[in-house]
Amino acid sequence: MEGDLADSAAFAPPAGATELEDGTALTPKFDSEGLLTAVATDARSGDVLMVAHMDAQALAKTIATGEAWYYSRSRRALWKKGETSGHTQRVVEMRIDCDQDAVWIKVEQVVGACHTGRRSCFYRAVPLGTAESNMRAAKLEFRDAPVFDPKAAYGKRAP
Amino acid sequence: MEGDLADSAAFAPPAGATELEDGTALTPKFDSEGLLTAVATDARSGDVLMVAHMDAQALAKTIATGEAWYYSRSRRALWKKGETSGHTQRVVEMRIDCDQDAVWIKVEQVVGACHTGRRSCFYRAVPLGTAESNMRAAKLEFRDAPVFDPKAAYGKRAP
Repeated sequence: MEGDLADSAAFAPPAGATELEDGTALTPKFDSEGLLTAVATDARSGDVLMVAHMDAQALAKTIATGEAWYYSRSRRALWKKGETSGHTQRVVEMRIDCDQDAVWIKVEQVVGACHTGRRSCFYRAVPLGTAESNMRAAKLEFRDAPVFDPKAAYGKRAP
Repeated sequence: MEGDLADSAAFAPPAGATELEDGTALTPKFDSEGLLTAVATDARSGDVLMVAHMDAQALAKTIATGEAWYYSRSRRALWKKGETSGHTQRVVEMRIDCDQDAVWIKVEQVVGACHTGRRSCFYRAVPLGTAESNMRAAKLEFRDAPVFDPKAAYGKRAP
């Protein structure tokens, strides 16, 4: 029953470009796999914490509950952020983009978002200025230290 | 020649999970279409400006030049942000995520990023708390006013 209510039919289908961009109707444009891109930022620092995907059900549950739900492409499953680790995301605000194929959520992140133990998945910087012909010379620079032990938080499971 | 240098062979192929997540080698994991997800945030405000894609060439050019380049899926073309409108993005910092399939760039955005005339593509909020069974009742709320006239900036072209 819940699956029926929360599938893509729960949302009105995308209309023409004008309504999509300038209207007030929420008509998410799911891709061929039924997914939107979701970007979560830290409501306090503004840092991007993670980029993931939501299917219609994850989007509906996130809107309804104010807690972040995603769809895992690798596990092919709906997934409440923090369901294993306790590292949930309370959504402070949700925005949708011009063509309604991406959402941005500002969240209060408990402990850390990344399954590697960092607060953000974007813990490495890519140095700028490397010559276009020499990309293999670019060395990533670590910027954020772990904030939790992933083995303790997840056991053997993925986040 | 440039195309040869800048294709995905310009980057080393992704290694195992440990090296991918804990190493310093830049080994981007392009999807089946040869793309990464790219999130651009305003270096000053922290706001998410846009979500787009980069192919290997766009990524290499962004790293090399410090200006944002993307790949347009609809136009199937490499695209320098602002090439038509002048609304370029100077990259202050680039980060890559744990599994190297998404990059986050902090940018200095000239005027506005969105082809609709707003500074950010995420100019509408999705109200939280709508019942999961009643998603069609969710009404988007406009948060950001236009900062430029898209007709003047782009003529008849897409951004």
